Amino acid sequence: MAVYTEVDDESLATLLAEYEIGSVLSCKGIAEGVENSNYLLVTESGPHILTLYEKRVKAEDLPFFLGLMDHLAARGFSCPTPIAGRDGRILRHVAGRPAAIVSFLSGVWPRRPTARHCAGVGGVMAQMHRLAADFTMRRANDLSIAGWANIARACIGGADAVETGLGAEIAAELEVLEAVWPDRSGGADALPRGIIHADMFPDNVFFLEDGLSGVIDFYFACNDMLAYDLAVALNAWCFERDGAFNVTKGRALLESYGRVRPLTSAELEMLPVLARGAALRFLLTRLYDWLNQVPGALVKPKDPLEYLRKLRFHRQVGGVAGYGLEAAA
Amino acid sequence: MAVYTEVDDESLATLLAEYEIGSVLSCKGIAEGVENSNYLLVTESGPHILTLYEKRVKAEDLPFFLGLMDHLAARGFSCPTPIAGRDGRILRHVAGRPAAIVSFLSGVWPRRPTARHCAGVGGVMAQMHRLAADFTMRRANDLSIAGWANIARACIGGADAVETGLGAEIAAELEVLEAVWPDRSGGADALPRGIIHADMFPDNVFFLEDGLSGVIDFYFACNDMLAYDLAVALNAWCFERDGAFNVTKGRALLESYGRVRPLTSAELEMLPVLARGAALRFLLTRLYDWLNQVPGALVKPKDPLEYLRKLRFHRQVGGVAGYGLEAAA
Repeated sequence: MAVYTEVDDESLATLLAEYEIGSVLSCKGIAEGVENSNYLLVTESGPHILTLYEKRVKAEDLPFFLGLMDHLAARGFSCPTPIAGRDGRILRHVAGRPAAIVSFLSGVWPRRPTARHCAGVGGVMAQMHRLAADFTMRRANDLSIAGWANIARACIGGADAVETGLGAEIAAELEVLEAVWPDRSGGADALPRGIIHADMFPDNVFFLEDGLSGVIDFYFACNDMLAYDLAVALNAWCFERDGAFNVTKGRALLESYGRVRPLTSAELEMLPVLARGAALRFLLTRLYDWLNQVPGALVKPKDPLEYLRKLRFHRQVGGVAGYGLEAAA
Repeated sequence: MAVYTEVDDESLATLLAEYEIGSVLSCKGIAEGVENSNYLLVTESGPHILTLYEKRVKAEDLPFFLGLMDHLAARGFSCPTPIAGRDGRILRHVAGRPAAIVSFLSGVWPRRPTARHCAGVGGVMAQMHRLAADFTMRRANDLSIAGWANIARACIGGADAVETGLGAEIAAELEVLEAVWPDRSGGADALPRGIIHADMFPDNVFFLEDGLSGVIDFYFACNDMLAYDLAVALNAWCFERDGAFNVTKGRALLESYGRVRPLTSAELEMLPVLARGAALRFLLTRLYDWLNQVPGALVKPKDPLEYLRKLRFHRQVGGVAGYGLEAAA
């Protein structure tokens, strides 16, 4: 929960004069999201979201993120649509920060995801992967395996203060993944690549009574293996609070994805490795935030050990059956 | 900025089934308010505010607060209107906390109040005082002079850690106010009493382009001297960021109040004393919060010394002319 940068009423009036969405009726900071400052901005034309991009988001990446949302929305994908001002520009500056106004998306994110929610996520993710196929901008995944090694170096020294042996376990895991991580040579066995969301956690997927209503927060989106996106979602959606993997949810997620974009046998085979990588990625970024807490920060860091437990689970998964899916014929 | 209690999607659906405002389209925690958890709840019938009352608000006071908002709104005052469920009840429980849904109020609070804003506040406060005159419920002001003495006892020992001599200055001020504070005997010189808002700070008053749009947050409202409410507002609205009192703003606030409810000469005469009391009240509660910070709390405590400087200003004010008003004839 966070609003890092406050927008005063005068800056807001000045901003809205650059748009054709009417004058401001209300603007309240939203206590969600940990990367940026978000405001629910109601104007005479309805509700919108005003986002001020904070330091963690690189300004040079914003055209990619906003362009992707625009591309997807134009193809009927339910996600926030960036709104252009009278001058045609989407990106501007408010209170000293890059900022954009996007359309408001109805829905509530599920606090206790069910198999029905997982099926919804699988389907919408595959739909996104397909619709983004002709998006021409590119952005490397700086939180893929090379990035993990960098973060590991920065926090491996403090890791054992969080759990004894954690530093060695991370180093060993990285070594294994370096050896088996697919798609690094671009060879014939490379997995299908494209634009991935890379952070499709429950708080980024909205539902209404009749089902999934949309996806938000494309600020980790990048080019990577499509199945890696699924691996992130398996981690984020299919574990119970007690740490157990729920195969019914895993099956729902994977089958529903496969109905929109069938998974190749290479992707299915690599899923346990990709899931280990995804678990390590969130273990590492959470560990880094845990070890680098700012006193008085507005955001409580998330428990890194949740992802250590998930990582250990994936390590003993022998194949997609471990995620609830029948092995490919 | 705060959301202390999270409301899950299932509890929300259960809650809304008790109302006739349609099903939920969106529910986002608002990063404003320091006492309660507030959600901007959009249903098929439009936007509302869902408030979960946290520990600082006494449950037994809620019927007073909600009853007052209902009373005022029914008389055309622009404030949130509590919304009753199908069973006619306003107050319910969500996520283990007392909760209510109120109507949504358009407007943005002014970050840099101008004299125009101050005039708006003066007028709306007098209007509130008049419209609440026939509200029959009562609530004592537990943050009046007896309450200050209690808070002072709790934090006077730590005061000098914030500023050398602060403890003694608070004790001396309390002693003076104990001697001159009006209206304690209920005698003939008692000032006019009624329902006051008691916290009409800029973040509780909304404006649109064409003027003041409404008042929120009645969770400090109580019975007290009406002019004490004005004294709180003089402190909250009429000082510049550099600490100087702006007499143009003071005059705008007081004159505009007086046009709706003329101030008695006793009230005008007592204004500097009431303003000292109001400054001491916020100095003390801020000091208490400052000295009792919870590590990892979501709310940053406000600077108590801002109110020490205001208190010192009021101490040297000789009469209403010091606030920009011509002395009463």
